[in-house]
Amino acid sequence: MTYACLGPEGTFTQTALRRLLSAVPPGRAPAHRPFPSVPAALEAARRGDCDAAVVPLENSVRGVVPATMDQLASAEMHINAEVEVPVSFALMAPEGVALEEVTAVHSHPHALGQCEDWLRTRLPGAGTRTAASTAAAARQVAETAAPGHAAIAAPAAADLYGLRILAGGLGREEGAVTRFVAVAPRWSHPARTARERTSLLVFLGPGGPALVPDVLNAFRTLGIALSWIQSWPTGRALGSYHLFLDVDAHIDTGPLRLAMAAVGSLGLEVRFLGSYPRWTATG
Amino acid sequence: MTYACLGPEGTFTQTALRRLLSAVPPGRAPAHRPFPSVPAALEAARRGDCDAAVVPLENSVRGVVPATMDQLASAEMHINAEVEVPVSFALMAPEGVALEEVTAVHSHPHALGQCEDWLRTRLPGAGTRTAASTAAAARQVAETAAPGHAAIAAPAAADLYGLRILAGGLGREEGAVTRFVAVAPRWSHPARTARERTSLLVFLGPGGPALVPDVLNAFRTLGIALSWIQSWPTGRALGSYHLFLDVDAHIDTGPLRLAMAAVGSLGLEVRFLGSYPRWTATG
Repeated sequence: MTYACLGPEGTFTQTALRRLLSAVPPGRAPAHRPFPSVPAALEAARRGDCDAAVVPLENSVRGVVPATMDQLASAEMHINAEVEVPVSFALMAPEGVALEEVTAVHSHPHALGQCEDWLRTRLPGAGTRTAASTAAAARQVAETAAPGHAAIAAPAAADLYGLRILAGGLGREEGAVTRFVAVAPRWSHPARTARERTSLLVFLGPGGPALVPDVLNAFRTLGIALSWIQSWPTGRALGSYHLFLDVDAHIDTGPLRLAMAAVGSLGLEVRFLGSYPRWTATG
Repeated sequence: MTYACLGPEGTFTQTALRRLLSAVPPGRAPAHRPFPSVPAALEAARRGDCDAAVVPLENSVRGVVPATMDQLASAEMHINAEVEVPVSFALMAPEGVALEEVTAVHSHPHALGQCEDWLRTRLPGAGTRTAASTAAAARQVAETAAPGHAAIAAPAAADLYGLRILAGGLGREEGAVTRFVAVAPRWSHPARTARERTSLLVFLGPGGPALVPDVLNAFRTLGIALSWIQSWPTGRALGSYHLFLDVDAHIDTGPLRLAMAAVGSLGLEVRFLGSYPRWTATG
């Protein structure tokens, strides 16, 4: 198996990949190919250049990751696994740069968003520059060593690229977590466990959000718990949404099949994205 | 009335403000104070330094605006009006810069996200830099006139800052629209019209998404249509969400009061964000 993921070395995605394949010894990366962006990694999996892509889906502070939501909504991709990764941000720069000298901060837009409050209060004069990933930002700052430039990345990226940490814990919330998923064109029938999750995508059609109560009732009536209910725009107009649902049940169970048929009988298309073990802290 | 909004001149927010106050002659900006970011504009309204803030809430392609969702969820702010603005992006640079010479593209992260596909195919080698707003990006590119630097902004920003448009229609979808809202600490009791909308925020508490069907049924049972159902993370943990709802009814109607009481009887807090006229194309 080769996994497509956001590179270079030192991204949170690579921590996710290592956790997902917990048999891999610490410090050794599983077979993966780094890509410059989440859409590029997803595209490699879609075309079959890699067996799967490991990509971020949602964060406990900043919400969903648009690139992943778009791909799940528009391409026939499936989710075969999930993993949660604690997300902690540090500001890092080459040796000799002091915090008060920082004038430009490089990072991924999602990370810049999560560190907005810290930047506004601690470095109000500094500009921000987007990089394709947090690790790409760290690498770039290390390579160019331009005066006053720093990166926001995972603390581990500082070691990897020879940078010094100027400040840690930049995120707005202690204990922020990102949920990553492994996606591929086919559902891989992962081995069943005691805690199953199924991801579904409901195309709401012209009825729009007014139909959501009926959709949710179909699951509720059959005793299926919902753990994620997420609207995502179709892109066509304001008020036009897809509905992503996670439910606590495996696709090969009667009640879930019945619930999906009930949603179908409302005239709505339901796409099965995947059944997979729910992530637990013990991995 | 002074409105806080994202500056400088030439942002989509200022178009929203002009549309909102349709009595203002074209070309004349209503009384407003520009702020460098959406959180800063919201903070000015919260503190009372301005009477209200006009801020983007959601976009038909890219989904919700995190800074606005966060402020609505965490501060006692109310929505007094909404307005939709078509969003069209152009790439612009100082006179003499050709498209193929562009190496760095400046814009707001939301705009860079919406133009991701275009940038990947048409300017794959160019780096991206975040600016506080699309208009700030245009102004900066005009002022520094660094070789190879360009901005993505509203076409009108090119005129305003003396830039030349290199390409138009960069967004992923034709007809993309952003919904803006006017928010203030107090609800202003806007005059009632035939088409009312009420925005509510439901704190789901420890029961989480499993309670959403009950919440939605409370409105459905009383014949109240839902036009927006949006989960937003509380920031505390994955799986912990607030629920933003828009319903087609005014707060001073019996059925809506009853529905809100029904949600309260589930043990959940419902916060009233505002009742205001639904935006229609005729303004």
